[in-house]
Amino acid sequence: ELVDLCVEHCSSYSTNADTINRLNGKRVVITAGPTREAIDPVRYLSNESSGKMGYALAAAAAICGAEVTLISGPTQLTPPQNVSRINVISATDMHEAAMAYAEKADIFIGAAAVADFRPEHVASTKLKKKIGEEAMVIKLIKNPDIIANVAALTPKPFTVGFAAETNNVDQYARDKLTRKHLDMIIANDVSRSEIGFNSEHNEVTVFSEYDEIHFPHQSKDRLAKALIQTIANAFQSAMDR
Amino acid sequence: ELVDLCVEHCSSYSTNADTINRLNGKRVVITAGPTREAIDPVRYLSNESSGKMGYALAAAAAICGAEVTLISGPTQLTPPQNVSRINVISATDMHEAAMAYAEKADIFIGAAAVADFRPEHVASTKLKKKIGEEAMVIKLIKNPDIIANVAALTPKPFTVGFAAETNNVDQYARDKLTRKHLDMIIANDVSRSEIGFNSEHNEVTVFSEYDEIHFPHQSKDRLAKALIQTIANAFQSAMDR
Repeated sequence: ELVDLCVEHCSSYSTNADTINRLNGKRVVITAGPTREAIDPVRYLSNESSGKMGYALAAAAAICGAEVTLISGPTQLTPPQNVSRINVISATDMHEAAMAYAEKADIFIGAAAVADFRPEHVASTKLKKKIGEEAMVIKLIKNPDIIANVAALTPKPFTVGFAAETNNVDQYARDKLTRKHLDMIIANDVSRSEIGFNSEHNEVTVFSEYDEIHFPHQSKDRLAKALIQTIANAFQSAMDR
Repeated sequence: ELVDLCVEHCSSYSTNADTINRLNGKRVVITAGPTREAIDPVRYLSNESSGKMGYALAAAAAICGAEVTLISGPTQLTPPQNVSRINVISATDMHEAAMAYAEKADIFIGAAAVADFRPEHVASTKLKKKIGEEAMVIKLIKNPDIIANVAALTPKPFTVGFAAETNNVDQYARDKLTRKHLDMIIANDVSRSEIGFNSEHNEVTVFSEYDEIHFPHQSKDRLAKALIQTIANAFQSAMDR
């Protein structure tokens, strides 16, 4: 029954029909959504990620029989069927969960929009503006680089990153692929409002060492299935080498 | 029919049964939810407000026949029936909408958790962390003080503020009431996780020049009805003076 479902879901994208064989029983870890970096008990830094792309990838991988762990920042989304969800808030929490699960993963997909920086100090009580105070400075320090740390594991899972950029998208994506030793990177232009963070649709280009595949504008659900197919193929090729 | 609904909803809290007469046809403007202050096209500063308290107040005022305008920051909530909702993102946008509607309002309730500060510069493209960069600084400047500016209007609406604090709650609330020339302030302790921003419940103390009323732990819907009753009474007293 599961096989039928997957064949049905995957067949329209498949050049070969055995994505399910490649993913069935494989451990897939996916991060999704934004992270929130606390400034004080009520204020935080965050970003526009809705989590939709990561959740759609988790659903698509689970349909193909993978054991999916979804490590999710704060979102309003319902976890997909047959997916185990771990809820986190900050990049530090997400890093800890990601490293714990990545060690045993076959495939790791970093779809979360992880904050690069967090406030150096978190105030334990709400910061008060002082009378006459017209400006304020927040000092930020670097967060752990989750995807780079996953890709540095030995043995490492097949590691797929995302590059959500507003400019020079292809260049940043290629650079990130090489510098962080990723197996694959999925790049999209979040400056375009019809696709990206708050949209139901997306349009991406997938870069790997060997090729570059463009996926035109389509629903995130449909795109997720096509991407899982592409990832499964590349994962199998990497195993075969 | 409307009268019956209100009497039914308000009767359990009423010392007198004419809240509806006090609010029927009155223009009530309510702000709700967080604001988001952009750092670049994908990153922002925000806070934990869910908007539930402001939306519940809007619903309660509309049931009593008021013409309610709800100026809302980004939330996942559905606008209550018979409420006109204006969606905004930043404190600057909320300030502009609030001032435009407050001029014609009888009652203004500032339930939004407005960011006190915003980044001085908003980058037009996604900020990139540089290789080796371990720290970063965000310079913030003060946002307009919406509730103080509303209370400074001539003539001014009956102006109700909120004080969401984590410590010295009563002291900060009383100070804010006086300093910003508010008619009333509703104070709650958001350090307690069982009430406040992300809860369905709340417990507040209402301060005015003349009195101090404590509302014990209860659902935000029930509390909103009691608060609208209290606001309507105080509004009427102010009109009668």
